[in-house]
Amino acid sequence: MLDLKQQKEIRASALNYFENAGIALSKKEISKEIKIFNYDNVDYYTMGIVIVTFINTERYCGRFILFFPGQCAGEHWHPDVGANKGKEETLRVLYGQAFAYGEGEPTNNIKAKIPEGKEKYFTSRHETVLNPGDQYTVNLNEKHWWQAGPEGVISLEVSSTARDKYDLYTDNTLKVNIY
Amino acid sequence: MLDLKQQKEIRASALNYFENAGIALSKKEISKEIKIFNYDNVDYYTMGIVIVTFINTERYCGRFILFFPGQCAGEHWHPDVGANKGKEETLRVLYGQAFAYGEGEPTNNIKAKIPEGKEKYFTSRHETVLNPGDQYTVNLNEKHWWQAGPEGVISLEVSSTARDKYDLYTDNTLKVNIY
Repeated sequence: MLDLKQQKEIRASALNYFENAGIALSKKEISKEIKIFNYDNVDYYTMGIVIVTFINTERYCGRFILFFPGQCAGEHWHPDVGANKGKEETLRVLYGQAFAYGEGEPTNNIKAKIPEGKEKYFTSRHETVLNPGDQYTVNLNEKHWWQAGPEGVISLEVSSTARDKYDLYTDNTLKVNIY
Repeated sequence: MLDLKQQKEIRASALNYFENAGIALSKKEISKEIKIFNYDNVDYYTMGIVIVTFINTERYCGRFILFFPGQCAGEHWHPDVGANKGKEETLRVLYGQAFAYGEGEPTNNIKAKIPEGKEKYFTSRHETVLNPGDQYTVNLNEKHWWQAGPEGVISLEVSSTARDKYDLYTDNTLKVNIY
């Protein structure tokens, strides 16, 4: 859980990142669409995300995704939801650097630091290092996770329809809160 | 038609716009994906587009679209293609200013300058002025066109699958060349 003061601080800090990266948000987005994804009982700056979804229709989705320096998301995948195929997504770095992990040949000595004691919940170890202009496409049902480099990272996600609340996590005890 | 020298100049100029706007392209994109859309027998800087498509799958598409100062695209729409529904798209300005026209109540004294003698081919006159952070969603089969403001405009397009060669133009004599 994040209290209101923490949420306010995170939003203000996120807005600074967007401004420094030269990514314009509308007034409405600034006041209502800077969403904080946090996990119960996990330090926010270790694991968490900021997401600004600027469009999400029944056909496609576009959003900006921020990780603070060293922050990561829990490994997850996007299952089918009813008759709807799971989400496929392309993440393109706009600012900073990301270490992206997906399925495939595991990379030796990965650059990311997996949160202590959580190694078994980060099973995809095929690493791609992404700098501005680089992108990574996550396949259907591929288990994936990202960690920001030392300056944090803002990426653009273009995808099929997002249905975040149906995402499945390798650590199925993770409880996601969205503020 | 644009000769090789003209194409080279347009690409170099486009790359300058992307760099000035802080939008990173990969080396591969710079060498192969800066596509020039031109119309036969129409001055390029009056009507034309530069498009960098960074992803286009059977489910979604993401691209950067550049119009040089005052340049516009021909009014068009995206029809169904076989069993595939026509494209729906969201255009979000990253740099510069756009005058966007779609269906709806016509705006008096629109800001765009319609190319001389072509008035009847620009039928959608509902104007939306877009600055960085603003966006416009084009509905299914909506006739639409854009014109850049005095500094040009770079926008991000997030959409369902793009099938450009099936686009239909209000001026059905327009012949699109893609370089």
